[in-house]
Amino acid sequence: MNELPIGIFDSGVGGLTVYRALHDRLPNERFVYLGDTARVPYGTKSLATVERYAIENSEFLASLGIKLLVVACNTASALALPKIRERIGLDVVGVIGPGGRKAVVETSSQDEPRIAVIATEATVSSGAYTDAIRRASNAASVFQTACPLFVPLAEEGWTAEAETFSIAEKYLKKVREFDPHSLVLGCTHYPILRDVIQQTVGENVKLIDSGEATAEEVERLLTDRGLANPNEILGTRELCDDLDHFYVTDAAERFAKVAERFLGTTPNKLEAIEVYGRDELKT
Amino acid sequence: MNELPIGIFDSGVGGLTVYRALHDRLPNERFVYLGDTARVPYGTKSLATVERYAIENSEFLASLGIKLLVVACNTASALALPKIRERIGLDVVGVIGPGGRKAVVETSSQDEPRIAVIATEATVSSGAYTDAIRRASNAASVFQTACPLFVPLAEEGWTAEAETFSIAEKYLKKVREFDPHSLVLGCTHYPILRDVIQQTVGENVKLIDSGEATAEEVERLLTDRGLANPNEILGTRELCDDLDHFYVTDAAERFAKVAERFLGTTPNKLEAIEVYGRDELKT
Repeated sequence: MNELPIGIFDSGVGGLTVYRALHDRLPNERFVYLGDTARVPYGTKSLATVERYAIENSEFLASLGIKLLVVACNTASALALPKIRERIGLDVVGVIGPGGRKAVVETSSQDEPRIAVIATEATVSSGAYTDAIRRASNAASVFQTACPLFVPLAEEGWTAEAETFSIAEKYLKKVREFDPHSLVLGCTHYPILRDVIQQTVGENVKLIDSGEATAEEVERLLTDRGLANPNEILGTRELCDDLDHFYVTDAAERFAKVAERFLGTTPNKLEAIEVYGRDELKT
Repeated sequence: MNELPIGIFDSGVGGLTVYRALHDRLPNERFVYLGDTARVPYGTKSLATVERYAIENSEFLASLGIKLLVVACNTASALALPKIRERIGLDVVGVIGPGGRKAVVETSSQDEPRIAVIATEATVSSGAYTDAIRRASNAASVFQTACPLFVPLAEEGWTAEAETFSIAEKYLKKVREFDPHSLVLGCTHYPILRDVIQQTVGENVKLIDSGEATAEEVERLLTDRGLANPNEILGTRELCDDLDHFYVTDAAERFAKVAERFLGTTPNKLEAIEVYGRDELKT
């Protein structure tokens, strides 16, 4: 069991930022990543649909043999975690709980901490981050807003363009008025735009990368459960090296191209899996 | 048969611009529209996946009883038309052929017409517009480019924002250098940004809306095949009135919200259909 890889799924390529955080923190672990590129994005879809997709992804990864499942997608973490846990006989870690808790910890020196959250429409509507933050702190006040264009901007690789700054200015105007102590990057694509976001909200606002927070929590969980890999991996671990497997449900070539933008490298082992079965549309 | 509605499908909400063009030109016809919002967008997905989705959508509409199928989605028209025709025993009209032919007609006064095409990555890669234009004219030279951010900008309703102009400036720089006589709006979302696009390329460039071209071709086809509705519809036809049915595979509320932005009204009859069956993911 301990030698099994850690499973990670995301709606697409954004979860690679979570993979990177896990990889950096846990050099002795192997990873298997599934990007559901045939059905990306999840952020504009309904609860029922996101649940269904999330369960299918989780069952696929479980069938490969994993010791722990990380739901890297914020939207799936916000909407589908209970259903996934029902189905999968494994520890499941989402990104919302760790991100929310880290935001509270990072603002714990404040009497009345103000925490802002930016995320997809679906994540914002779910109120999942607000719930996670409230569970960790009674004192915190929370402001959240959706930034729909940040995902396509990140995928286009427009990380320093004037247009990106201008759009960030617009989306984050109310965040600035709220004057937060910390700002949660509540979508896996947003760390790609970290510099733009930081400059827009000001250097005093602590940015919380839910991926990094999740990696810290996975590390603790592996220790608590005695699940860490006991066999030291020899040699240097590189991002996307032969020890990590990547699967996508569609368009592997495009995934590799965007991975290059996100990680500066592309997976050695990348496989497009076929989606069997058919959706039957009925009234 | 003649009294049956015309079926229209799109990957999501963009095809409403095609619905509007059909509705305006054919006030005596009823329409049934399917937006595959559970799996939108198609423009970044592979041939195999787009084909599968397109066939499922077509079979759903055929099962409702339609006399003709309009594939409003440019990407599905570019990639999946032959497979849809194989499966569906009905006339099928895509948007690419009509759009390409209209671009040629509109530039026929030129000795060496230059036609530019803007579309999704998948449509551009397919070369379908180039093929359609070449079939209609040996003389035309074609330049095409993808404008990925136009879709989310249209869905955000940012039709006059400075950022949209600035992004258009960037995407259309090479189009302007090509100095086209006409420019095909090769994605159903793009007519929403028509003013921005027209101002960016200059007033001398004739914009070709594939939706309008398709409506003209559907009108001809109904006449040729003797399929026009013989019973005159009494009273005033309005967009989205009770005579037209709309189905989505997910998130009806969001569809209605974006429809309001696109059409200035929302469907009276809008239904989210359940997607039965399950995709099984296997290696």
